[in-house]
Amino acid sequence: MLRSCAMRLRTLGATPARRPEATRRLFSSEEVVCKDYALPNPSWTKDLRLLFDQFMKKCEDGSWKRLPSYRQNPPQALQEFQTHFVDSKFKKEEQMSKAQQFTRSLEEGLGFEYAMFYNKAEKRIVCLFQGGLHLQGMPGFVHGGAIATIIDITAGMCAFSEGIVMTANLNIDYKKPIPLLSVVVVNSQLQKIEGRKLFVSCTIQSTDEKTLHTQATGKKLPLPICQYP
Amino acid sequence: MLRSCAMRLRTLGATPARRPEATRRLFSSEEVVCKDYALPNPSWTKDLRLLFDQFMKKCEDGSWKRLPSYRQNPPQALQEFQTHFVDSKFKKEEQMSKAQQFTRSLEEGLGFEYAMFYNKAEKRIVCLFQGGLHLQGMPGFVHGGAIATIIDITAGMCAFSEGIVMTANLNIDYKKPIPLLSVVVVNSQLQKIEGRKLFVSCTIQSTDEKTLHTQATGKKLPLPICQYP
Repeated sequence: MLRSCAMRLRTLGATPARRPEATRRLFSSEEVVCKDYALPNPSWTKDLRLLFDQFMKKCEDGSWKRLPSYRQNPPQALQEFQTHFVDSKFKKEEQMSKAQQFTRSLEEGLGFEYAMFYNKAEKRIVCLFQGGLHLQGMPGFVHGGAIATIIDITAGMCAFSEGIVMTANLNIDYKKPIPLLSVVVVNSQLQKIEGRKLFVSCTIQSTDEKTLHTQATGKKLPLPICQYP
Repeated sequence: MLRSCAMRLRTLGATPARRPEATRRLFSSEEVVCKDYALPNPSWTKDLRLLFDQFMKKCEDGSWKRLPSYRQNPPQALQEFQTHFVDSKFKKEEQMSKAQQFTRSLEEGLGFEYAMFYNKAEKRIVCLFQGGLHLQGMPGFVHGGAIATIIDITAGMCAFSEGIVMTANLNIDYKKPIPLLSVVVVNSQLQKIEGRKLFVSCTIQSTDEKTLHTQATGKKLPLPICQYP
């Protein structure tokens, strides 16, 4: 998620898009329309739309920013990244161009439906999440791996405010299962920085805050430490 | 993953299917062909096929068993499960019938390609895993959430040998990124049982065992403890 984070944070200053798609240059020889998936679509439940609208209101005074989200990374970002992480098994540019962000690879409404909001002063990210029918683990509930995924990207965005980071540790306590198609609030906070290590906390609660579904901690490391050998 | 586990373990005694599809009764009024996804398909790399064949050889003396894997749970299992976890937000049977197992919801080759093998005497599961192009996190590498997912299902199957369990904790150390389309070996071991708690360990290594990509521990609880309120 590293580069998509970079893209998101670069666009933090942008006003919320009124149309769901924005054109960005992805390849030097062609223009590719790149959809921002962190905007309402027909699969969003009333609960998710309501919360989204509430946070968009909070964005009006500049204290919160909505973070856009895309399926693919621009080739320039891939090249930059590969200077740090060179792996002989993945050098074919053709393959690379077909890769998609895990959290945006399922069809609209079936997978991860979410929108993130960032509060710079509080070093906090709130992610509004609705788990689609193809995220099933136990019958009727979101898979533990899908929960880990939404925690990883939310905590990752939170730590990213301090620079480019990677996840070194993720410790998750699963308290209560999350029903499919329900809306929950993922809240991540940068807790402390020790040397080059960043420590973040994360909770997943029901929208009324009465149910704690999951709590987690994460340790993040800046890129140079985690270089591929 | 609870019910799919149940299905898998019930079928442990079955001989490896020579054809990739087997018919199972899913609905009382109709027959539905349910595909076993834990068998080779054209997206599997040579490395994955080779390892799969090696483990199939090990199955011949009965010490190892291949575990099948499906996209959907039979309605009977859902009903059984709902007697434990009743949630008003997810009672519509029509919705439930459209839900799919998270790890099998992406198209062939693009998501989680894996096959699991179980050694009862050693209380151990080996999962051969190839991460497809739609599992991307950092450019060119498998997403940390996808890694957490494959660990969760492998450790879950390992603990399941002791009964129906749910994940209570997952603690993951990410050591080295896993390149997309590479094949890795996920190894999970039941470590100890304390009261009703089951403790499992899990590692992800390269096929030559020279690179430790990830290591994790998991705590599992039998179903009655984790009842939805």
